[in-house]
Amino acid sequence: MIKYPNGTKYQPAQEKKRVSKKSKEDLSISASNRGMDLESDINLSNEWYRDQDIAVITKRPTPINIVKVDYSRGARITDAYFEKQSTTDYNGVYKGRYIDFEAKNTKSKTSFPLSNIEKHQIEHLKMVLEQGGIAFFIIQFQVHQEVFLLDASYVIEFYEHGERKSIPYDVFKEKAIEIKQGFSPRLEYIDAIEKMYFKS
Amino acid sequence: MIKYPNGTKYQPAQEKKRVSKKSKEDLSISASNRGMDLESDINLSNEWYRDQDIAVITKRPTPINIVKVDYSRGARITDAYFEKQSTTDYNGVYKGRYIDFEAKNTKSKTSFPLSNIEKHQIEHLKMVLEQGGIAFFIIQFQVHQEVFLLDASYVIEFYEHGERKSIPYDVFKEKAIEIKQGFSPRLEYIDAIEKMYFKS
Repeated sequence: MIKYPNGTKYQPAQEKKRVSKKSKEDLSISASNRGMDLESDINLSNEWYRDQDIAVITKRPTPINIVKVDYSRGARITDAYFEKQSTTDYNGVYKGRYIDFEAKNTKSKTSFPLSNIEKHQIEHLKMVLEQGGIAFFIIQFQVHQEVFLLDASYVIEFYEHGERKSIPYDVFKEKAIEIKQGFSPRLEYIDAIEKMYFKS
Repeated sequence: MIKYPNGTKYQPAQEKKRVSKKSKEDLSISASNRGMDLESDINLSNEWYRDQDIAVITKRPTPINIVKVDYSRGARITDAYFEKQSTTDYNGVYKGRYIDFEAKNTKSKTSFPLSNIEKHQIEHLKMVLEQGGIAFFIIQFQVHQEVFLLDASYVIEFYEHGERKSIPYDVFKEKAIEIKQGFSPRLEYIDAIEKMYFKS
């Protein structure tokens, strides 16, 4: 794979900051900025993949329910609230195939809790799999400093039939592919897609 | 194709109304509600296709730049503005393939003006085509009461090399596929995709 020739362009500091519900929530829960880091890392990796003509993956904007717009000020929104994402955060195309995934991080050492995954998202991913799309989760275990790509089928299985509302860390070690972390791209998750879905 | 068994569920009146920049703009330009109708028709068709397990196509939320959030009122947005969509309005999966499109309507009888297509969108669609995705426009000629599916390559060609900043109606008659309009779904655009990209 061609490496990005000039390291300066994709410094996180230069990324356009956008206030999203998720990042704000993470900030309010903890002083740690890790949740936003995962999102930033994926966004930067997506930019890199796009610029290298490797894949076109985009983040869906956070859905917002608009209550009031002030047209005297050039369509300024003066009252609105965040809606729950009914699908996933990311989708796009790689080698003609449809790619769809959700990214989450956890502070737990031993398992990934399913409590912050919505039923709507599970339904969406099931339909994507039925349509022959590629669907997965990118899960960051902060304590282990590891990021995994786990096929959505495992998450659906644990969500619907698991005894505990979490996926043990061991399942990741066994069934997921660890995503290599580097500089360009920050998260080499297309390599993981390649290993998981295209080679065999 | 299986027809939707019960006509009541997908009445446009029952569709959840969402204030979007596009619909507001169309309303302000003209008393006609046609622009919003096309969007509603596509959204309802997408629901139908999803419920029938035919395809999973979703509308990207309108990107909004949030300036101020009032956390004392449960994360209420008190100042924000609409951003331009840098990609397209719709994407998803059909038969494992990535689908990406933009929907526009025109009041012109003779041509589709390219003035309301952003350069970013053209760039996005070029990259989608390079990745082997299926990319097109759904264009409604209001006067003719016709809706067409035109492959993105024609729009890119006219946008970049056309003498006039519009695509003549004749090009649609010759190169596009007319989308059948009905009740369930309102716009049978997956049939048009099937004819354009899967049969031959």
